[in-house]
Amino acid sequence: MMVSISDNIKKDFPLLQSKMHGQKLVYLDNAATTQKPQVVLDKLLAYYQNDNANVYRGVYDLSQRATSAYEQARKKVAQFLNAPKVEEIIFTKGTTQSLNFIAAGFGMNNFQAGQEIVLSCAEHHSNLVPWQNLAKKKGLKLVYIDLNTDGSLDLKDADKKIGQKTALVAINHVSNVLGTINDVKSLANLAHKNGALIAVDGAQAAPHMKVDLKNLDLDFYAFSGHKMLGPTGIGVLWAKSDLLDAMTPLEFGGEMIDEVGLYETSYAKAPYKFEGGTPNIAGAIGLGVAIDYLTELGMDNIQVYEEKLVTYLINRLQEIEGLEIYGPKKRVSGIVSFNLKGLHPHDLATVLDMQGIAVRAGHHCAQPLMAWLDVPACARASLYFYNTKEDCDKLVTGIIKSKEFFENGF
Amino acid sequence: MMVSISDNIKKDFPLLQSKMHGQKLVYLDNAATTQKPQVVLDKLLAYYQNDNANVYRGVYDLSQRATSAYEQARKKVAQFLNAPKVEEIIFTKGTTQSLNFIAAGFGMNNFQAGQEIVLSCAEHHSNLVPWQNLAKKKGLKLVYIDLNTDGSLDLKDADKKIGQKTALVAINHVSNVLGTINDVKSLANLAHKNGALIAVDGAQAAPHMKVDLKNLDLDFYAFSGHKMLGPTGIGVLWAKSDLLDAMTPLEFGGEMIDEVGLYETSYAKAPYKFEGGTPNIAGAIGLGVAIDYLTELGMDNIQVYEEKLVTYLINRLQEIEGLEIYGPKKRVSGIVSFNLKGLHPHDLATVLDMQGIAVRAGHHCAQPLMAWLDVPACARASLYFYNTKEDCDKLVTGIIKSKEFFENGF
Repeated sequence: MMVSISDNIKKDFPLLQSKMHGQKLVYLDNAATTQKPQVVLDKLLAYYQNDNANVYRGVYDLSQRATSAYEQARKKVAQFLNAPKVEEIIFTKGTTQSLNFIAAGFGMNNFQAGQEIVLSCAEHHSNLVPWQNLAKKKGLKLVYIDLNTDGSLDLKDADKKIGQKTALVAINHVSNVLGTINDVKSLANLAHKNGALIAVDGAQAAPHMKVDLKNLDLDFYAFSGHKMLGPTGIGVLWAKSDLLDAMTPLEFGGEMIDEVGLYETSYAKAPYKFEGGTPNIAGAIGLGVAIDYLTELGMDNIQVYEEKLVTYLINRLQEIEGLEIYGPKKRVSGIVSFNLKGLHPHDLATVLDMQGIAVRAGHHCAQPLMAWLDVPACARASLYFYNTKEDCDKLVTGIIKSKEFFENGF
Repeated sequence: MMVSISDNIKKDFPLLQSKMHGQKLVYLDNAATTQKPQVVLDKLLAYYQNDNANVYRGVYDLSQRATSAYEQARKKVAQFLNAPKVEEIIFTKGTTQSLNFIAAGFGMNNFQAGQEIVLSCAEHHSNLVPWQNLAKKKGLKLVYIDLNTDGSLDLKDADKKIGQKTALVAINHVSNVLGTINDVKSLANLAHKNGALIAVDGAQAAPHMKVDLKNLDLDFYAFSGHKMLGPTGIGVLWAKSDLLDAMTPLEFGGEMIDEVGLYETSYAKAPYKFEGGTPNIAGAIGLGVAIDYLTELGMDNIQVYEEKLVTYLINRLQEIEGLEIYGPKKRVSGIVSFNLKGLHPHDLATVLDMQGIAVRAGHHCAQPLMAWLDVPACARASLYFYNTKEDCDKLVTGIIKSKEFFENGF
């Protein structure tokens, strides 16, 4: 595998060769899910054809090969994140399950009534609804950090809102709508100074930049495999090991136990305590190959490339009269949300679809942020390293054409 | 796809063509996980290469194709089970998650202190530990139905144990150790007569026999895709729709909500309420193809074939002096557990492995049943429709050889 970011990189991705409505596909919905390089698909196939067996459960060679491949994937994730310990990596179904594990498995048992969970109103529902539910059950209070007028986090307000009552700061690393990057290292410092913990939703960050957990000093980190070239149905929860010790598992069953009697059970240690039942073995192994691919490209290279590309895109989008772009003008991650004056974003996305361009329209699982932006919905283009200037140009042309369609009729 | 049960069927399964320790693989650990036919792998590949997008979230064609394929898989599951309604089919990570959803999502909110959960001591940990945890939290009592001396369920005792205090009967459809089939229809009737509900762990049944939910009149049913030719990381929870209405979701996030405010959220209806976050889309679609394959073979044909094969295997195993077989002599499902006198089952499995034969040794996630059998562990051979008399003969020869090895030295 020798890969580098070039116009040629799309050839690694079979789906990017396909057409939509007769036009060559321009895939710009990477914040929802990314496409998969052939090497990941080859590995899935090879696993099922050569090594498929249940993990931990057999002394026979095939089962040991499957177990070893699964544990190898865990090591790759640990290295990718520069995690202090391999056994702090828990395989989950995805970001949503990871965040729910923190809320119901840790918060439920370790937070006290009257304490506060500090969030921003730019959270994805996955990093909001679990805390609402926990707050109701435990008598906690939800406190929201304000956003600056450009949509970035108001750090002065963060300083006010994070205090002695704070149990946890739950915040996104990169906003799935505005593309803003939160300074989670400073927020972690602020949380820790106040005796609080910090949980970071890394769904839009881990695929796009180097996440160095030793350096960031966070407490919990969550992300999904399918948003970073991996298969569906696999994700990661990382937490400091003393927090994992204090965390209750939520899925009781095989392989997460130490000893089971009729009335009493003792649990295994992390990560096994949190992986009851047969895990998504092939999914984890596929994620491992996705990580190899990303590592070879270099996460820093990916970030630099995407920053250049999104800057280009924003500059070009600003040419379009009547297009409102949300979030800071200086953009450092590849997510751009916008609305065209007088046109519902669903209609815009539909006409773009007819031109082979895939963007998402809706509330992007961030209804409170839509309320803050004072729009019911918006369109969103989200880039990955395989996107090109040509893709950006096609989007701009597509939006202009859509505008003309609706102004002048079809 | 034209398939029938014959000695030739193994050709559909690439892994069954492989060797283990230089010997043609004899795979007899199907209760742990099954191998995958090439048609399932082809579909996984085709999905990622042609249709991969996030479901529900895009108006563009690609996303609608992915959504339609995912919902098509749900329909296939509903038909496979003869479920009353398609929207009663919830995709989960697997049996373990399904059973935990029932315990924590339904039991937690609908059972009262002092009520009883009735189980058997032949449950897999996945259908035991969730109830232990719930019992502790809610002040419920666990009550165990006795087994007859041959390991089958004592129905007279069931009649005594299921009563007015019973909230739920939680029972396996087929035991993962003894291969016994429980008459869940009669147990459902008994539960309902007493105003109780019944949840059935179908992990070892759904892959091997026709499960007709309309006929059985159960309340909850759970199983895994990977034990029935499907990918890892996908499973099913079925429940009657009024029970789903009374059930709380456990994974809060995207796509399971109706409206989200900063402090209040309303949830979507089933199945979406229980599928927060991006689901295992490819996994569900792969399971759909596995179901097509099984349906073409015919679930009744599979059951008849496996019953004949297991009868043959048990007869042959009885030739081996010093081999103790657990469970009823008349076996109707393809799971046989045993121990060879004087030999630890791990050692037996290891020597069988060297002969290319994959069986499992251990407690099979059923420690209470091991206690009932009064053994620390046992070996288990579990068949699927692709196994043959030749496989059974090889196992018998393998056990005899292992015995000779240990008696006479290597």
